[in-house]
Amino acid sequence: MADVWNCYHLDLVEVESQILSNIGSDVPLIKEIATFVFQGRGKRIRPLLLLLSARLFGRQGHEVYALASFIEYIHTATLLHDDVVDDADFRRGKEAVHRLWGDHSSILVGDYLYATAVRAIVDFRIHELNAVIADSVQRMTEGEIMQNSINGHRGMLSQAEYIQMVECKTGALIAAACQMGAILADADVSGQEALFQFGLSVGTAYQIVDDTLDYVGQGERLGKTLGNDMRQGKVTLPLLHLLHHVDETRRADIQALLEQLRLGQGDIGNIVALMNEYGSVQHSMMIARQYIDKAKSILGSFGESPAKQALYVAANYMLDRDH
Amino acid sequence: MADVWNCYHLDLVEVESQILSNIGSDVPLIKEIATFVFQGRGKRIRPLLLLLSARLFGRQGHEVYALASFIEYIHTATLLHDDVVDDADFRRGKEAVHRLWGDHSSILVGDYLYATAVRAIVDFRIHELNAVIADSVQRMTEGEIMQNSINGHRGMLSQAEYIQMVECKTGALIAAACQMGAILADADVSGQEALFQFGLSVGTAYQIVDDTLDYVGQGERLGKTLGNDMRQGKVTLPLLHLLHHVDETRRADIQALLEQLRLGQGDIGNIVALMNEYGSVQHSMMIARQYIDKAKSILGSFGESPAKQALYVAANYMLDRDH
Repeated sequence: MADVWNCYHLDLVEVESQILSNIGSDVPLIKEIATFVFQGRGKRIRPLLLLLSARLFGRQGHEVYALASFIEYIHTATLLHDDVVDDADFRRGKEAVHRLWGDHSSILVGDYLYATAVRAIVDFRIHELNAVIADSVQRMTEGEIMQNSINGHRGMLSQAEYIQMVECKTGALIAAACQMGAILADADVSGQEALFQFGLSVGTAYQIVDDTLDYVGQGERLGKTLGNDMRQGKVTLPLLHLLHHVDETRRADIQALLEQLRLGQGDIGNIVALMNEYGSVQHSMMIARQYIDKAKSILGSFGESPAKQALYVAANYMLDRDH
Repeated sequence: MADVWNCYHLDLVEVESQILSNIGSDVPLIKEIATFVFQGRGKRIRPLLLLLSARLFGRQGHEVYALASFIEYIHTATLLHDDVVDDADFRRGKEAVHRLWGDHSSILVGDYLYATAVRAIVDFRIHELNAVIADSVQRMTEGEIMQNSINGHRGMLSQAEYIQMVECKTGALIAAACQMGAILADADVSGQEALFQFGLSVGTAYQIVDDTLDYVGQGERLGKTLGNDMRQGKVTLPLLHLLHHVDETRRADIQALLEQLRLGQGDIGNIVALMNEYGSVQHSMMIARQYIDKAKSILGSFGESPAKQALYVAANYMLDRDH
């Protein structure tokens, strides 16, 4: 993956410059917060996938960089809202915006970035771009709301429900990024649809791996504490697998811990030990791998090119990353 | 104004039905909260103005009702976010969503309604509609952020800065509602621009009157406590006028009260007495009246019609309403 980042480094520098120059507001607080947020080094996965998707169909240049910057605006808007929703202390290794400027600033600057992206995408005057981005934002918010609705089920949602939530929450925007790259490159409808499906699979795997690393990642490298999701009462695939496989007594114990929301490092350690016993982490990674396999098989229908190869590497990276 | 509400009652019933039927999500929490919110009887000023603007150019029917419902979605999305930002307890006489379902639900359902409206407006396949709505949302969030940024100035913003904030915060969406009615009715560009300016003036006056009623309205009818804005540290036109006209000692006293954020009924009583002494309420109403005069003069260029008459009455209503 390091080769892909290197190979497209200059394109990503252009995107970075677009991200900072398109903020376009004279309100000092907006400039201040947006600059702070965008100087936090996000991985820029969505802009990269958009660039590569456009390149797959032979398109590059200024408009691609601009569109890639707007995808990052929308992603950042959701982070600003999620941090308030989750009461997160840190983001990308820095203190979260709502901790520094208050919840209201995090909510409103999120709204502003979202509106700015929608406004700018309208100016491309391509109906499909508007439809794809609006669809994905609608699905993302549905996914977030599903996530926040499941607490009442004591974690006993089905794997299919979890997958649906993840497809909405994370898959939808990555799917949109890939499809928008294809649309801007004038790909035909089947090409656009292929890139949408590629992005949906990659994005879904990305979130499953993220959810799994929460139980196996190294605290420092992840920049967050192990078992953070469970501490917030969030049920993700490894825990879901565990809940469905332990006996009734243990299940009740875990559900009690989930509701209590005050887990110690010892509790998390016990859960991780149980996950190892029941193969919950392995199961989650296997599901993620199935999505990446699907993504790569979609690429199979395209002729060889550096962009295709880079998308292939990026898909694999979702499984191999350790943070 | 009662005549206008009566005359367009059936149209507004259609809008109401569209509002409830277009929510379009299977996520139970979204349906539950959206239904709760929309059964709270808002005034539906924005849908009404959109209907009348379309009618002014001879257009009515299903598409107008649908578009009117989406304007109300966007307005409601901003209310759901504002209630979290302002930590408001009540909205439209009912307990606020974030008090019943938590901040996260209010933020996320706000996001969902906004995305749903943007998505649906895309389906009209009229570029100008997309541009107008995205512009207005961008300006609204700028206005809200300006509002939340001025606390550092101890209230000493200029009247021009206040007006700019109000134009963004409230004027922009009402301007968009009127312009979108005109766009849907195939009005020419000068007709669209006229309706935008009409809405901007009406919306700006609407907010100035709202801000003024906070110091003179009757608590019960307004459904909120007198002096609520000042309690939240919000500086609006009457207080701004007062700050600019009292002597230095009193100004320092008022500024100290503003920063303290713990005003008693007695403090508010003293402020209101000072406002009467310095004519601050009268000044604010005069400024609002200038905007309504401008709005009515814009209507002057259109031939007589029931829709024009209704817009005229609606403009006057902004000044005469007592809640």
